[in-house]
Amino acid sequence: MSELVVIIFCGLLSLAYGGWAIQSVMAADAGSERMREIAGAIQEGATAYLTRQYTTIAIVGAVVFVLAWVLLSGTAAIGFLIGAVLSGLAGFIGMMVSVRANVRTAQAASQSLGAGLEIAFKSGAVTGLLVAGLALLGVAVYFAILTGPMGHAVTDRVVIDALVSLGFGASLISIFARLGGGIFTKGADVGGDLVGKVEAGIPEDDPRNPATIADNVGDNVGDCAGMAADLFETYAVTLVATMVLASIFFTGAVADQLMLLPMVIGAVCVVTSIIGTFFVKLGSNNSIMGALYKGFIATAVLSAVGLLLITFGWLGAGTVYTTVRGVTFTAMDLFYCGIVGLIVTGLIIWVTEYYTGTQYRPVRSIAQASVTGHGTNVIQGLAISLEATALPAIIIIVGILVAHSLAGLFGIAIAVTTMLALAGMVVALDAFGPVTDNAGGIAEMADLPAEVRATTDALDAVGNTTKAVTKGYAIGSAGLGALVLFGAYTEDLRYFASTAQPGSIFEGVNVDTLFSLSNPYVVAGLLFGGLLPYLFSGICMTAVGRAAGSVVEEVRRQFKEKPGIMQGTEKPDYGRAVDMLTRAAIKEMIVPSLLPVLSPIVVFFAVRAVATPSEAFAAVGAMLLGVIVTGLFVALSMTAGGGAWDNAKKSFEDGFIDKDGVTHLKGSEAHKASVTGDTVGDPYKDTAGPAVNPMIKITNIVALLLLAVLAHAS
Amino acid sequence: MSELVVIIFCGLLSLAYGGWAIQSVMAADAGSERMREIAGAIQEGATAYLTRQYTTIAIVGAVVFVLAWVLLSGTAAIGFLIGAVLSGLAGFIGMMVSVRANVRTAQAASQSLGAGLEIAFKSGAVTGLLVAGLALLGVAVYFAILTGPMGHAVTDRVVIDALVSLGFGASLISIFARLGGGIFTKGADVGGDLVGKVEAGIPEDDPRNPATIADNVGDNVGDCAGMAADLFETYAVTLVATMVLASIFFTGAVADQLMLLPMVIGAVCVVTSIIGTFFVKLGSNNSIMGALYKGFIATAVLSAVGLLLITFGWLGAGTVYTTVRGVTFTAMDLFYCGIVGLIVTGLIIWVTEYYTGTQYRPVRSIAQASVTGHGTNVIQGLAISLEATALPAIIIIVGILVAHSLAGLFGIAIAVTTMLALAGMVVALDAFGPVTDNAGGIAEMADLPAEVRATTDALDAVGNTTKAVTKGYAIGSAGLGALVLFGAYTEDLRYFASTAQPGSIFEGVNVDTLFSLSNPYVVAGLLFGGLLPYLFSGICMTAVGRAAGSVVEEVRRQFKEKPGIMQGTEKPDYGRAVDMLTRAAIKEMIVPSLLPVLSPIVVFFAVRAVATPSEAFAAVGAMLLGVIVTGLFVALSMTAGGGAWDNAKKSFEDGFIDKDGVTHLKGSEAHKASVTGDTVGDPYKDTAGPAVNPMIKITNIVALLLLAVLAHAS
Repeated sequence: MSELVVIIFCGLLSLAYGGWAIQSVMAADAGSERMREIAGAIQEGATAYLTRQYTTIAIVGAVVFVLAWVLLSGTAAIGFLIGAVLSGLAGFIGMMVSVRANVRTAQAASQSLGAGLEIAFKSGAVTGLLVAGLALLGVAVYFAILTGPMGHAVTDRVVIDALVSLGFGASLISIFARLGGGIFTKGADVGGDLVGKVEAGIPEDDPRNPATIADNVGDNVGDCAGMAADLFETYAVTLVATMVLASIFFTGAVADQLMLLPMVIGAVCVVTSIIGTFFVKLGSNNSIMGALYKGFIATAVLSAVGLLLITFGWLGAGTVYTTVRGVTFTAMDLFYCGIVGLIVTGLIIWVTEYYTGTQYRPVRSIAQASVTGHGTNVIQGLAISLEATALPAIIIIVGILVAHSLAGLFGIAIAVTTMLALAGMVVALDAFGPVTDNAGGIAEMADLPAEVRATTDALDAVGNTTKAVTKGYAIGSAGLGALVLFGAYTEDLRYFASTAQPGSIFEGVNVDTLFSLSNPYVVAGLLFGGLLPYLFSGICMTAVGRAAGSVVEEVRRQFKEKPGIMQGTEKPDYGRAVDMLTRAAIKEMIVPSLLPVLSPIVVFFAVRAVATPSEAFAAVGAMLLGVIVTGLFVALSMTAGGGAWDNAKKSFEDGFIDKDGVTHLKGSEAHKASVTGDTVGDPYKDTAGPAVNPMIKITNIVALLLLAVLAHAS
Repeated sequence: MSELVVIIFCGLLSLAYGGWAIQSVMAADAGSERMREIAGAIQEGATAYLTRQYTTIAIVGAVVFVLAWVLLSGTAAIGFLIGAVLSGLAGFIGMMVSVRANVRTAQAASQSLGAGLEIAFKSGAVTGLLVAGLALLGVAVYFAILTGPMGHAVTDRVVIDALVSLGFGASLISIFARLGGGIFTKGADVGGDLVGKVEAGIPEDDPRNPATIADNVGDNVGDCAGMAADLFETYAVTLVATMVLASIFFTGAVADQLMLLPMVIGAVCVVTSIIGTFFVKLGSNNSIMGALYKGFIATAVLSAVGLLLITFGWLGAGTVYTTVRGVTFTAMDLFYCGIVGLIVTGLIIWVTEYYTGTQYRPVRSIAQASVTGHGTNVIQGLAISLEATALPAIIIIVGILVAHSLAGLFGIAIAVTTMLALAGMVVALDAFGPVTDNAGGIAEMADLPAEVRATTDALDAVGNTTKAVTKGYAIGSAGLGALVLFGAYTEDLRYFASTAQPGSIFEGVNVDTLFSLSNPYVVAGLLFGGLLPYLFSGICMTAVGRAAGSVVEEVRRQFKEKPGIMQGTEKPDYGRAVDMLTRAAIKEMIVPSLLPVLSPIVVFFAVRAVATPSEAFAAVGAMLLGVIVTGLFVALSMTAGGGAWDNAKKSFEDGFIDKDGVTHLKGSEAHKASVTGDTVGDPYKDTAGPAVNPMIKITNIVALLLLAVLAHAS
């Protein structure tokens, strides 16, 4: 299979790009002694946190590794290990670069906007391309080993189980990383703001605030490492799910080829993403967003060309495929499905920008509502968060129907794979955010001239938009990816039922009638699945509130015990807040992370205890869809609402002109009301909302593994 | 059918009780000149609002009436009219009593707590028993006319269509009443609080606040009339849906009997509710909640006895029933289903009290979070609102599974019918709330002695709890009722498919495989249905925010133009705020109300345009379930969260002792933070959340009507 060689080569290319970009970032000037000292404190805190987080996850991971080995096979356990380690690695390297690029961006920003942009984006691109490259390499290399030296057939269950386990490894890391990082970063941010901005009246990133280093550490462990793990997982899991579908739907040479297709798409798009990074250049109009979008559009257009090449050059445009279920489509149909994926990506980015951009109705309505008080600000923010789910949901619905009409479930899978193949570029845009955020913090703390802070602020404002946009993309793709996983669950179940031996638990399971909405177990499953994202995000919000509360108390304590801090004569103890948050985040991430892992297993055995295996499979399947349905809305509303609140607050920084023509400046009552909204939006958009993504998928992938384990046992 | 005579007699009994209770309330002393003047202003505002609201609804209603006549039949159109008029009447009479009982409760409270409780509860009982009695009478009398003088067979489609139309009439009124009333009341409450409590620093109900009469009007048009219409609708619709199922599932004499069963249950429980009201008496411990619960528990226990009498005395405990689908159960099984309904009611009340009671963890955690600021208060409130969905959902899931295992879908229907048969008593407890709230307002405005205000405050605090508890009951029963409606949709579809003529749109529709979760139209329908409650509640929240914002501006204007208001030398213009809110509420209620009415129709024809009729039916059916799933969680989270915020604020009134032992009093920073949370919770719990109930059911009942219209046309 020479294709695998090409795929692996493309994966390695992304690592090479990462290596080059790291070198080029590290070669830049790291600024003054004071700047390096601050950056050092951030590095130290971030490294300490991530080390502790990974150590804790390793304990859970070791248990799962043993379980996978015993219940499934050694290859499955090793697959799990590969997924977990690579996911962690992508986040870790990305963060290590990020905490070094921050200070260099601050320094470069003192030269020019373009120089600052270059370093910050290059650092983001390292994370982006490592995410896509390592995920692609992990799947491709392990697949090559399983089907090459180890001699398994491409569609052998051993291969499938190993790949699904790889996806599960990535999922498990990602939920811990998203949650732990999210609790840390927002505990620091909310707590620091409440006591710093609101009570003490000092600006953000003021070195007198004892929580300020923790806040900057949080940007790296949450927005960089956490987000990287999340998208690594979505990427890997979608690739795997599409391959599982191909292995079930097709046989013979067609199966061989179509199992490679998702990896080929990924490989082509890694290359187009690398090329895209070179399009990110500040134009003559000095538009930072324009520069970033140039890179994204170049990648998208090149990817469409790449898809065309794959279709004509490798599949053959007129080739007709027929699944074992009798669905017939051509290679050209698959190409159109890929285009559907690209269009869905573009539309979701556009809608997210509409809902979170300062110049449009939603954010303006929140800013306007701030004029009449804190209460109306929060009410309007919640209203926007609820409303913002409608258009993305409709885009996803239309995407599903179009892709399905072109090539059935496999068409949906190809659309999502293409959507995620752009992850390298999208993550680059996102990981740019924490670097610029940190650069601003360092500029403030190191007392750099106001112009430097203005430059980093300009970069940071764009970073906020790209972060919001990526979240829309992440949840949209996660929702669609989860639907593919759900499809894999039903098809897997059908496969096991059709090959069931007498006495097997799968005997007599009829997938065609199983998931009928008039089956009470299906309704019960839907409702139970529906409650999981609610309960999960409720626990997440509580965790952030608790962490933030303890930061507030710690900062108040330091202010009281060291009155010199506010006069600038005493130095706050930054380390204590970092330590405290590290402990809090690690402790708080465990329970909610286990909720989606254990739910499918508990539901299956609980229903099995009182009903037939068919009913248990139906309840679990419906639960998966229930998680997807409410999870999609919970995550969309939280990420969009949080982004809108954030930018409503930013509207006041340049003076917000209300509907009566009155200008409200920073520090006005209206601005204070907008800060309350932003505080509420923080855990919405950076902890609970994004953590729902891996939560949705982990539930689905655990269900797939459950089928594999049951099949293995019977 | 002598049973019908008994049912109608029980319905009339509730009217007689209502008449007696009204007389007894009106005979009480209406207090001083000043008190009557204030009450007069509230009466005037409420009557003006309700008249205007009903006039507007009448226009929509007239259009629907004509459509029903043309598309279905004259009997359907008249059914629609009956449902609409009775629903409006229940709300109108309830409110008319409520606005007269308020001042009498205030006056009685100056004598004793017991006297105040008696008048307030009697007024609530009028609303409660009119809701249950009129709904029962409407269905029973029209059913008697259709099957008696008009000579239709009991299971004739003409009868079914007429009853479904009656349900639709009730639904249409209820969504307008819930929304219009909800926007009015919370616009006044939030706006008045923001500018009065927060800006001007004057207490609630202070006569200097120009929004204070509007706030009291709002209690009556929202919490009393709106809530009455909502529960009238749930009651009527559930009765109808259960009768539809009976007509499809059974034939001959069994059908005759089981179609009467829901009405018989309703009749028995109307009587037990009347008896229950006499158990509401203040005991020696002076516990108001205890007095109310005595009434509820008496009703529940007597209802269980009543169910037993029905089972043994009328059905025959051992009678075996078999549905046309082959499900077999005994009358005793149906009795157990009724008990399931009672247990679900009890458990949901218990869980709601846990999540909204000041003495338990959830509310205490919000109060504690207020200590660290506005932001953490709102974050923790949102966390609790999300978490609070889990237990009610699990109770509903278990209820569904148990009732289904006893007697299939019909068992679920009987469980929900029994749950709703208690509506007379539950609404009485709820409608008690606005009366005591108003009584407190009148005591404050009329400068009654502090002891009187203390007594009305004690009554009002209990009113807040009963309001929260009823909301949990309302949404739980609405969710279950909607599932029965969804069941009726699938069974109706099956019926039409099985009797389809060649060329009919129902030809070849196979309900057994139609609603498979692997059908993309089912997934698309679920997602589309899922977005409706989000979009709907987003629009509701925006409407309240906008209405509140305009109240803030109006009050600020009055304070500025008449500086004597704050000194007490000038009188505010109360009428302007009432007028403004009336116009705003009527205008804002139209669009969101039409969303659930039009959605099933639009989805059906949109899918029909690109796919087969089967796929269109599948998409609509899945949409119904999608609305139920997310609607249940949206409504549960909003009502529980809002109640918890409200009571977290109340915790500070007696001094909240935080985890470090510090006491925070009214007026402290922590108390101010809790006021922000309460403001946010207001539209959550009193506008958007409760309006989701009729919204869920209206979608389902429109879908049922759509089937009837399609069957009529083909």
